[in-house]
Amino acid sequence: MMVIKIGGSVLSDKTRKFHFRAEVVKRIAYELSRFFPEEKFIVVHGGGSFGHPLAQKFGIREGLRDYSSRHGFVVTHLAMLDLTSRVAKCFLENSLPAFPISSSSIFITENGRIVKGSLEVVREAIEKGFIPLLFGDVSFDVRKGIEIVSGDEIILHLAKEFKPEKVIFLMDVDGIYDRYPGGQLLKEIRVSDLENLEVQGSAGIDVTGGIRKKLEVAKELARYTQEVWFVNGLIKDRLSEAIIGNALGTVVMP
Amino acid sequence: MMVIKIGGSVLSDKTRKFHFRAEVVKRIAYELSRFFPEEKFIVVHGGGSFGHPLAQKFGIREGLRDYSSRHGFVVTHLAMLDLTSRVAKCFLENSLPAFPISSSSIFITENGRIVKGSLEVVREAIEKGFIPLLFGDVSFDVRKGIEIVSGDEIILHLAKEFKPEKVIFLMDVDGIYDRYPGGQLLKEIRVSDLENLEVQGSAGIDVTGGIRKKLEVAKELARYTQEVWFVNGLIKDRLSEAIIGNALGTVVMP
Repeated sequence: MMVIKIGGSVLSDKTRKFHFRAEVVKRIAYELSRFFPEEKFIVVHGGGSFGHPLAQKFGIREGLRDYSSRHGFVVTHLAMLDLTSRVAKCFLENSLPAFPISSSSIFITENGRIVKGSLEVVREAIEKGFIPLLFGDVSFDVRKGIEIVSGDEIILHLAKEFKPEKVIFLMDVDGIYDRYPGGQLLKEIRVSDLENLEVQGSAGIDVTGGIRKKLEVAKELARYTQEVWFVNGLIKDRLSEAIIGNALGTVVMP
Repeated sequence: MMVIKIGGSVLSDKTRKFHFRAEVVKRIAYELSRFFPEEKFIVVHGGGSFGHPLAQKFGIREGLRDYSSRHGFVVTHLAMLDLTSRVAKCFLENSLPAFPISSSSIFITENGRIVKGSLEVVREAIEKGFIPLLFGDVSFDVRKGIEIVSGDEIILHLAKEFKPEKVIFLMDVDGIYDRYPGGQLLKEIRVSDLENLEVQGSAGIDVTGGIRKKLEVAKELARYTQEVWFVNGLIKDRLSEAIIGNALGTVVMP
């Protein structure tokens, strides 16, 4: 089983509100359809220009304050339901039964880290031949009242539970660079090397952190999976190559 | 705390595909806003002309068979996400933070009856000052692979867990009649009377059963709540009157 993260910057142009790259998502679905159902997948997607600007506008990460933060919590989730529905439709067009599971319905966080997760439906969906489709979302938080549960946090939780063969992050760049811009693509990283890197920035708004955070996630993920790939989701076949195990991109290994 | 069921025939004209009565739902939300947040609510809505025709078209209740049933399962859920998003927006317009919780993400059924339910998020939502918004939905089923979890089944499960003060069903008729059409409205029913009733039919498609099923549900509900109301959701103030406890309609009591 593999976990695929479709980054928010892949499925939308983060500088444009409610922008959705249907053609890109359809092509990603098509690539997965070459391997499914022999290979099982869980797909997690980010908020892109649907969730992030609203989460920021309403200050969700500042926690529960007043009616306005409750209003923003609902509105942000509704935007994510809209986005995940679009993603699911792109998958259906490629005969992939991607089934949306609302992250906010199954996870409870503490300062954004998942402390309770109910994965029964994710497990059932896989067993019944579906592709569970989760997404970065709002969350009820035992410390702050409300928070954001990021796609990366969800992937970490899923990896602990399901021990996937590999985890593949689809990004809008070719992988991890030693410096950005102008640096060199790091093709293979050992977890032990992960201390002294200068890492790239990311355009647009990203309330859930950038590449530095991603490498921390990769480091933690490497405890539960054999390979963590970072490849360009905007370029055809990179995902397929990562699934096979030989892609232009970055692979992080234990 | 009260549980409110917005029947599918209230929020849509079941004879018209993807029909949504926004004005009716807004007025229902407005009535709840007179009592919230002093009174807490959980709202559950039916599938109306969004979920039912698709569930029927794809034969979801026949269980998991082939790719087509998986496709139908996803498509039916997507229609319900669309519907529940519309309901949530009508609530937001009346300053009610109704938060959609995907029934299929938290319930697993056996022949359509809930056998596993994860209610942590429902509980958190209430505690944090939200109105949990659930809906009849598709479900993974331990016996049939896939099934439908009806709004009524969800209400039964919620009532067992939360022991609400009352449960109010909003319908497209004034309540329960001893015969229909042409019969008399039954204003008060004792559970012990519930054996010998001739009950009314319902127009349009209703894959999850009609009024007879509702009375069976009322009978079971009466073990966990003091009053089960059936009132006309299409007529102004009936809901408010049921909340207060003096409405034109039917009340079922233990």
